[in-house]
Amino acid sequence: MVKGSRGMNPITFVLAGILCIGFFIFFFSSSDASSPATDRQKSGTAASVLSPPSLPFRKAKSNEPQAAPPVVHYYMNNVTNSRTPVENSETVLILTPLARFYQEYWDNLLKLSYPHDLISLGFIIPKTKEGNLAYTALQTQVTKTQSGPKSKRFASVTILRQDTENPLQSQLESERHKMENQKARRAAMAKARNSLLFTTLGPTTSWVLWMDADIIETQPTLIQDLAAYDVPIIAPNCFQRYYNEEEKRNDIREYDYNNWIDSPTAKELAAKMGKDDILLEGYAEMPTYRSLMAKMYDKSGDPGAKVKLDGVGGATLLVKAEVHRDGAMFPPFAFYHLIETEGFAKMANRLNWESFGLPNYLVYHYNE
Amino acid sequence: MVKGSRGMNPITFVLAGILCIGFFIFFFSSSDASSPATDRQKSGTAASVLSPPSLPFRKAKSNEPQAAPPVVHYYMNNVTNSRTPVENSETVLILTPLARFYQEYWDNLLKLSYPHDLISLGFIIPKTKEGNLAYTALQTQVTKTQSGPKSKRFASVTILRQDTENPLQSQLESERHKMENQKARRAAMAKARNSLLFTTLGPTTSWVLWMDADIIETQPTLIQDLAAYDVPIIAPNCFQRYYNEEEKRNDIREYDYNNWIDSPTAKELAAKMGKDDILLEGYAEMPTYRSLMAKMYDKSGDPGAKVKLDGVGGATLLVKAEVHRDGAMFPPFAFYHLIETEGFAKMANRLNWESFGLPNYLVYHYNE
Repeated sequence: MVKGSRGMNPITFVLAGILCIGFFIFFFSSSDASSPATDRQKSGTAASVLSPPSLPFRKAKSNEPQAAPPVVHYYMNNVTNSRTPVENSETVLILTPLARFYQEYWDNLLKLSYPHDLISLGFIIPKTKEGNLAYTALQTQVTKTQSGPKSKRFASVTILRQDTENPLQSQLESERHKMENQKARRAAMAKARNSLLFTTLGPTTSWVLWMDADIIETQPTLIQDLAAYDVPIIAPNCFQRYYNEEEKRNDIREYDYNNWIDSPTAKELAAKMGKDDILLEGYAEMPTYRSLMAKMYDKSGDPGAKVKLDGVGGATLLVKAEVHRDGAMFPPFAFYHLIETEGFAKMANRLNWESFGLPNYLVYHYNE
Repeated sequence: MVKGSRGMNPITFVLAGILCIGFFIFFFSSSDASSPATDRQKSGTAASVLSPPSLPFRKAKSNEPQAAPPVVHYYMNNVTNSRTPVENSETVLILTPLARFYQEYWDNLLKLSYPHDLISLGFIIPKTKEGNLAYTALQTQVTKTQSGPKSKRFASVTILRQDTENPLQSQLESERHKMENQKARRAAMAKARNSLLFTTLGPTTSWVLWMDADIIETQPTLIQDLAAYDVPIIAPNCFQRYYNEEEKRNDIREYDYNNWIDSPTAKELAAKMGKDDILLEGYAEMPTYRSLMAKMYDKSGDPGAKVKLDGVGGATLLVKAEVHRDGAMFPPFAFYHLIETEGFAKMANRLNWESFGLPNYLVYHYNE
């Protein structure tokens, strides 16, 4: 039972292979940048520019100039999260567990109209062959974006590599969704989300936007639209575009079943379960009769309709940073018979933060 | 029940008043530092040097040179946590919720023989009059230390100010310990610990040492001593020095009752409780018959004796960073009828991480 050694846990994200890529946007002409002193300065500060407070200072080589003054004080303004985040220069941390890289995901990210210099990106990538491919593809796009037009560059990018192989991550889509594989898969995903969250959230982060790597289409105003509701946790409705063979036309269909309102049936099921058992949504073997937001979409309904949710998915989810700071994380264990993002909603609820969903505001998942 | 606005929660640590003080140790002569270009460079980088990845880049003034190259890549070595942390240059994050500043606490910190350039400090201070005093006193000592001998300087120091008044924090010691005040007090403390943890833990942190502000005496080799056990969570025994009036001599006595091994009585009590009720330790009104580590101290026993614990205190507690990264935090709500640090041990246990205590290895609490 003791887990003193890392090797014993295949899904511990000790971040043994951490790869961090940092980028900065410059809003001023770099006329001074070509002076020899500044060039040397660059290499001297490279490792510390993006360092979280807990990073050690990289010892500079003896021929490098001093990188920073010995004492740096800085006083920050209040960290707010408001209906009008752009006006208040509120920072957004977009977090994505990335097993596969979709160009459409990145292109959609670039189209977000929220000021990119207020957005930091964080990724966690499994240590699998597929993860290696995803990492390479991501790195290429990150490099391209961060050296491209200034208005498109993000404030910073952090990429964490898990240190251990997770066999479940590389499974086929059909295999991954099998009910018996769900508990282990979602526990692993919960730990990945926690690792990413705990190591990238900073003291000035106002909002955390969880966005899965297979979300390929959102409104460019996604962040502003969701923040405008000014609620602790909010999820749009995750759909999928597909070709409707019967009707011979492009169509949409529901995808994510993790956004739901609880039901008496689900509560009864939970009451009869063993303490480590979990409820899952979207499986015929386990009918919960919960009200699924995926089923509430009404094309001709109020586009701004908002419902209170008891469980949420992580496909696209905007969270006020203070919810996480209070301690709300993604339980990798059965928490009130819920796990991962659904457990997160329950944990946030135990901390008196409520979750909401937007049935008629759609984002789109990749169609495998 | 909705807590959409911050003002409704007196103990939400949204960090509205964040004060960060960053410091760097320089291991090289600063002969180049006096060149005009480098001096200007200093002010240009001041805000970004300690920035966590999620901090926005501070826009430089137009007359400042470029602070860093547009693309910074850095690859870090594996983050380990081993029996020999000094040899492996493992970074330690010392986290302290600070309501009152004791000079003896700071002096003890300075005496720690673990390389200070591998230690980052993080504090969270309540927004009370007493907190203001503590902040001022801390700042004075931090400034003194970080401009003093290089070998004593810490890698970085982060100070978070809570944004709301917490009435319980300023209570008298006697009032604070009353059983009926414990749940609210410890929930507030749990949220403070979570805020501090979530915002200061970085991707390269190997260990987190929780140390209360009233711990005023430890072995200088505290970190090495605890790390040598190579276990996920480890607590020394927290005692107190006092003058024994009866025997007319200086003496020691037990102080912290939160380190314990569970008992059938406590389990029975828990089973009969309402879902939001919590078990507390050290109160005659609620005899749990748990085995308290405080009672296990044996002056003539094996100084290296180690026992497995089910509940831990936060007075002094060394935690492998991966335990927190997996998601283990301090529940501000009843978690298996446990709260705060005791709930943390239970949550870590649910994540398959075990806790241990050292009954004969003492640290000392301030004697009020």
